[in-house]
Amino acid sequence: MRGGGSAEARAVQGDTLSAQGGAPDLLVLKVGGSLVSDKRADDGIDAAALAGYARQIAALVRARPGRVVFVAGGGAFGHGAVRELRPDDPFTALELTRATFTVKWAWVDALRGAGVAAMPLQVAALAWDRRPAGRVGDADPRTVGAGTGEEVQADRTVLRKVLAAGAVPVLSGDCVLAADGRLRILGSDHVPGLLLGAGFGRVRIVTLTDVAGVLADGPDGTEVVPFVDPDAPDAAHDLVWESASWDTSDAMHGKLRALTSHARRGGECLILRGDPDGTDLTHLLAPLTDWPPTLPHTLITRRTPAGAATYP
Amino acid sequence: MRGGGSAEARAVQGDTLSAQGGAPDLLVLKVGGSLVSDKRADDGIDAAALAGYARQIAALVRARPGRVVFVAGGGAFGHGAVRELRPDDPFTALELTRATFTVKWAWVDALRGAGVAAMPLQVAALAWDRRPAGRVGDADPRTVGAGTGEEVQADRTVLRKVLAAGAVPVLSGDCVLAADGRLRILGSDHVPGLLLGAGFGRVRIVTLTDVAGVLADGPDGTEVVPFVDPDAPDAAHDLVWESASWDTSDAMHGKLRALTSHARRGGECLILRGDPDGTDLTHLLAPLTDWPPTLPHTLITRRTPAGAATYP
Repeated sequence: MRGGGSAEARAVQGDTLSAQGGAPDLLVLKVGGSLVSDKRADDGIDAAALAGYARQIAALVRARPGRVVFVAGGGAFGHGAVRELRPDDPFTALELTRATFTVKWAWVDALRGAGVAAMPLQVAALAWDRRPAGRVGDADPRTVGAGTGEEVQADRTVLRKVLAAGAVPVLSGDCVLAADGRLRILGSDHVPGLLLGAGFGRVRIVTLTDVAGVLADGPDGTEVVPFVDPDAPDAAHDLVWESASWDTSDAMHGKLRALTSHARRGGECLILRGDPDGTDLTHLLAPLTDWPPTLPHTLITRRTPAGAATYP
Repeated sequence: MRGGGSAEARAVQGDTLSAQGGAPDLLVLKVGGSLVSDKRADDGIDAAALAGYARQIAALVRARPGRVVFVAGGGAFGHGAVRELRPDDPFTALELTRATFTVKWAWVDALRGAGVAAMPLQVAALAWDRRPAGRVGDADPRTVGAGTGEEVQADRTVLRKVLAAGAVPVLSGDCVLAADGRLRILGSDHVPGLLLGAGFGRVRIVTLTDVAGVLADGPDGTEVVPFVDPDAPDAAHDLVWESASWDTSDAMHGKLRALTSHARRGGECLILRGDPDGTDLTHLLAPLTDWPPTLPHTLITRRTPAGAATYP
């Protein structure tokens, strides 16, 4: 990691450097569940897509060992696990830790097959809702992570050691224990927040999904919003609101809420389209100014880098 | 938990109180894999036995919520996962974290069925081999935990919070990362060591297995060694050495090594026979002086309590 001094000092330094643009010290890469779901497969996972992304991730890890964290989107697996939450059971969200372990393991298998030392880590075992009992909200287990993301705290020693060994921690959405004794859902879009403000330097959070970014002209559109100001995200939300007919899952709203929160905490966040047959993701490790000029993406970060237009 | 002051001070206090005998502040209960293995079942797990033990554990948790930690023995599941370790792969022991997650989940299912709020925690995500890189031994992943048990360190925040919520952390054997970048096996007999020296007060470690304790007269014997001095365990080991023909798995030697190590760190350790149809385990929460006088068991603790004979 960059610089010396305390973890806190490095984190603040990271915030500053992020605003200046530059190569990240740590890349947190999330691949959305929608990209690897296959309803025809027994386990619901598209093994060929998994292998394609694993191959691309392996090239990133070879280029910057110890600087890549992977977050597996839950997609249909995670949603299925929490379809029938029972408010009378404080541990009703627990099924999520089982379902996402299966997803993590599928990724670990694919990554190890591509030559990557990857290790699944159960977020429920290392993170918790830090809010005091009187302030965790009602009994609805879906409330964790819906706010600023700062209400989740974590023990990160093993995470750091896995990175120091040049290996890739494989995380996922999970349930976390709150001070009222209830387990609450921490969605995979919120999980990258565990790497912020923790001394990892400049953290870039990249979400690969099935669209090229926040779209200004609907689901089949081509007009990608290039930049979202995390301190004024309503304009971007309004665009998505208007496209509600294709966004029944609340997926892009949830992503925007999570990524604007991460950006306000110093993360440099990007939404891009994933391609299992892609040949090169190494720009994800480079300063944005060095990216292929025609690559569509939405950038969400605290200050406007040179060249990025604010929409609208 | 008992007493105030720092975690270290409380741990030392715990050591002292343990030697005096008394009720434990924390019960770490391990049920051996041999007690719940069923080769005829698809998943190798005897669901009826699991339910029987879960019923007995539920009574313990109702009596002392927040004071019971459960450790699932790996048995055949864990052994199968590590049958073919490859020294050329630093992460070869990783399969263990998958196999033992399945075992933990089976226990969580059974415990929740018995009304217990139980939560599986991946030991690999919260513990590591604390030895410096030059002192972790050779590349054999089977070396962690074979020594004093003190070479494993852990982040315990979530563990504490699960207990504070009155719930039961469900742990298991696992792999842990060492400073040389290799994953090493931490057997389930060593896992209770994570609760020692960490401010939990008087810790009692109970192993339920398929024999009534350390036997002086062979596998079908009836002469249970009542007490093993953790500072001079050779006499007990010698007995087991002589019975090597029935101990091909090294199981009792491994248990003795782990439990004498825990006892030297202040744990009050007991080996007893488990019974899925048993009606009452609540003596496990009582001072030894209050136990049923005819109940066979082997006690391993630092100082000889009144009434326990040292063997031989």
